[in-house]
Amino acid sequence: MPHISPFAPIDAPKILPVLGVRLNGIACNLKPSGRPDLMLAELPEGTTVAGVFTRSLTTAAPVDWCKSILPKGSARALVVHAGNANAFTGRRGMALVEKSTEAIALRIGCAADNVSIAGTGIIAEPIREEQILGSIPKLVEGLRDDGWELASHSIMTTDTYPKSASRVAEISDQSVTISGIAKGAGMIAPDMATMLCFIFTDAKLDGVILQEILNRVNLKTFSNVSIDGDTSTNDTLLLFATGRIAPKASITSSADPLLHDFEKKLTEVVMDLALQVVRDGEGISKFITVSCHGARTESDAHAIARSIAESPLVKSAMGGGSPNWGRIVMAVGKAGRPISKERLKVWLGPHLMASEGDPNDDVDRVAVQAYMNQPEVSIAVDVGMGEKSATIWTCDLTAAYVEINAAYKT
Amino acid sequence: MPHISPFAPIDAPKILPVLGVRLNGIACNLKPSGRPDLMLAELPEGTTVAGVFTRSLTTAAPVDWCKSILPKGSARALVVHAGNANAFTGRRGMALVEKSTEAIALRIGCAADNVSIAGTGIIAEPIREEQILGSIPKLVEGLRDDGWELASHSIMTTDTYPKSASRVAEISDQSVTISGIAKGAGMIAPDMATMLCFIFTDAKLDGVILQEILNRVNLKTFSNVSIDGDTSTNDTLLLFATGRIAPKASITSSADPLLHDFEKKLTEVVMDLALQVVRDGEGISKFITVSCHGARTESDAHAIARSIAESPLVKSAMGGGSPNWGRIVMAVGKAGRPISKERLKVWLGPHLMASEGDPNDDVDRVAVQAYMNQPEVSIAVDVGMGEKSATIWTCDLTAAYVEINAAYKT
Repeated sequence: MPHISPFAPIDAPKILPVLGVRLNGIACNLKPSGRPDLMLAELPEGTTVAGVFTRSLTTAAPVDWCKSILPKGSARALVVHAGNANAFTGRRGMALVEKSTEAIALRIGCAADNVSIAGTGIIAEPIREEQILGSIPKLVEGLRDDGWELASHSIMTTDTYPKSASRVAEISDQSVTISGIAKGAGMIAPDMATMLCFIFTDAKLDGVILQEILNRVNLKTFSNVSIDGDTSTNDTLLLFATGRIAPKASITSSADPLLHDFEKKLTEVVMDLALQVVRDGEGISKFITVSCHGARTESDAHAIARSIAESPLVKSAMGGGSPNWGRIVMAVGKAGRPISKERLKVWLGPHLMASEGDPNDDVDRVAVQAYMNQPEVSIAVDVGMGEKSATIWTCDLTAAYVEINAAYKT
Repeated sequence: MPHISPFAPIDAPKILPVLGVRLNGIACNLKPSGRPDLMLAELPEGTTVAGVFTRSLTTAAPVDWCKSILPKGSARALVVHAGNANAFTGRRGMALVEKSTEAIALRIGCAADNVSIAGTGIIAEPIREEQILGSIPKLVEGLRDDGWELASHSIMTTDTYPKSASRVAEISDQSVTISGIAKGAGMIAPDMATMLCFIFTDAKLDGVILQEILNRVNLKTFSNVSIDGDTSTNDTLLLFATGRIAPKASITSSADPLLHDFEKKLTEVVMDLALQVVRDGEGISKFITVSCHGARTESDAHAIARSIAESPLVKSAMGGGSPNWGRIVMAVGKAGRPISKERLKVWLGPHLMASEGDPNDDVDRVAVQAYMNQPEVSIAVDVGMGEKSATIWTCDLTAAYVEINAAYKT
C-alpha cells in the first residue's frame, strides 16, 4: 500500500478562479502510472510575471529557459511536465524546451519567449519529444476557466495529495483574487524557491513591482521549509498577474501602502502552499517546527535551526517519538555558528528540557513522552548570544522516506 | 534480529601488543545490556600524547577535559565509558570527569591531569557517579598486557563488531608497534577526528612531533569519512607513545625522513580503523567511495564529494541499488562550489553515465544495474574546472538506519 501523508486533507481546499486564466491537465505518459502529467495555463495579453528559482548550479533546462525569458516581464502561457524533470539532458533537453514553447506559442498566438516552462520528476533521463509535442493540440483544446483541479493534480510526483490555496486581497478598494498550486515532496531545502509553485492573480501590477514583492514573500515562506536538505535542479516559483483588475490609484512602488493587503494575502497563499509541501514530505509521520532564539544574527539563527531540522539523527528520533534532545544539542554544536554552551536552553514543545547548559531534572518525563507522541512537534533552542530568531518547518525521517527513495524512478 | 553489518569480519584482526600498555574492560551498567562499557589503559611514565577532537561547539565534558590537559603532552592513563556520552550534563558532568580521573590517578600513582578520558553513547543524560567511581578498583586490578580485545569490545555502542588495527614500523632500524582501536557508528561526519579512536605505540617520540604527525594523518583519514553528516559532541582521536623503544638517532622534527615509515604505517592503522567505522555505519548495506575530480581547489573537491556522500537522496538510491545518477548531478549542483555544467562527467564504477553535460546513450544499462547490485560501489564526478581531487568514504541510507535511530536510547 502506498504511503499516504497523515496530514492529507479530507477535502481539497476550494480554489477561487482568477480572471483571465484558463487551465488544462492531461496524461502524456511521462508518468508510467498513466496519470495526468502535462499541465498548461493560458494567460491573457498584458499578463506580467515574476519568478524565483533554485540556487543549484546544475539547473534543469526549463529553469534555464525561464531565467532567460524572465527579464521580459510578460507571459502568455505556462507549461509544466511531471514525471521527468528534463534536467541534465544536455542539448536534447534544451531543444525540447524550445520546441515545446514554440508549439504552444503558435497555437495560442504569442512569441515563444512568452511561454514559461517547468518540469519535475526523474533527473537525467531524456524525454522522447513526441510525448510532449504530440500532446500539445489536445492540451490547448481542453483549456478551461475551471481547470484548477486538473492542473493541481497533473503537476504531482510523489505527492500524496494535490496542493492549492486561495485568498482575496484588497487593492485600493478593489477585490483581487490570488490562487496558487504547488507540488513537493522530496529534495526540498530552504534558501530558495523550493519545488514547483505557481501563483496567479487578476490584479494589474507592473512586473518589476511583482518581482520585488515575490522576493520578499519567498524569504518569509519557502526559504524556511526543508524536507531533507537536498536541493532540486528544478525548483521554480512563478507569480503571474493577468491585469484584469486595475487598481483605481496609480501604484509606482512595491512599498506602496495600497499593496500591503495584497502582499499579506500573497504571503498567506505561498506560506499555506509551503506548509502543505512540508506536510506531504516523503514518508512523513510528524510535522516539526524548529525555532532558534537568542542568536547574534538572523543568519546564525537560520543556520542553527536548519542544522537541527536537517539532522538525520534528530529527524529519526522525532519519527520514533523519542525525546532524545541530546541530538538537538549535537545539531546546535555542529552548525558552527556562535552559541553559548553555558546559556543554552532546549525545549520540546512547552517542556524546558535544559537550561544554563544543564539538563532540567524537574521535567515531567511522562508528559514529555505524551507530547512526543503527538503528530505535530515543536523544537526550540535559545543559544544565549543575542536577540535574533528564525523558524524552519520540516518533517521527520522515516523508513518510508528511505523506501520511497530507494525505489523512486518516476 | 539486530542489524549486523554485511561487512563485519568473520575473524577479528589480531592486535599486536604495545610495550608498556596494560588494558582492561569491564561492565559498570551504563549499557542496559550489561555488556562491557568501561575501559582503562594504563601507560608507563614518560608516555607522550597527541589528540584531535570534534569541532562541535557543544562538546562533551570528557572532550573539554582532554583539550585542557593536552598541552601538558604527557599521559599515564586513558579511561573510556560507553553507553553514556556525559555530554551536555552541565556541572555534574564535569564533576564526574574530575572525580573519575582523580580516582584513577590515585590508584596508579600519577596526577589527575595525566589521565585522559572519553565517552560515547546517549547525550544529555546524567551518569550516576557511583556507576563509574564504584567500578574503578575492579577496573585497575584487572589491567593486563593482553587486554586489547576487552578494550575494543568495551568501547562499542551501536557498533556491530569491534575495530582494531596494527602495523609494525621502522624508525632508524628499530621496529616499533602501532596498535589502535576505534568505535563508530552513527553521527559521523568529516572535517575532524571522528568517533573514538585510540592509538598506542611503543616508539619514543616528543609530544609536539607526535601532534604534528597526528594532525597530518587525521586530514588523510578521518577527515574523509562520513556516515550521516552529523557531528558528535564527543569525537576523540588520541595517540599515545609509551617511549619504550627509543630511536638510535636523535629526531627533532616531525618532517625527519627517519619518521617516514612511522607516519606511513600510522596512516595505515588510522585509515584501516576509519574505514572499519564506515563499514559498520548504522544500518549499512553498501560501502560507497565518492570521488570528485577536476575541481579548482582541494576544498571545492572535498565539498562536492561531501555533498554527494551526505545527500539522503543519493544514499537512499544507493541502498536500493538504483543507478539514479541524476541525484548525483543534483548533489553536485547544491554544493555551491564552482563547476562546469557543460563539462560535467559522472561515473558509476567503470560506467561513464554522462559527459560534456549530456547523458551517455551508449551505456550498457544491464551492466550498470549489475554493478549497482554489488556491495561496494564507487561514484565519481569530474566537474571540469581544474586539477584537484578529493575522496570521501561513506555508506548508504537504509530503513535500518532510521529504525536504529528512531529507537536508540543506549
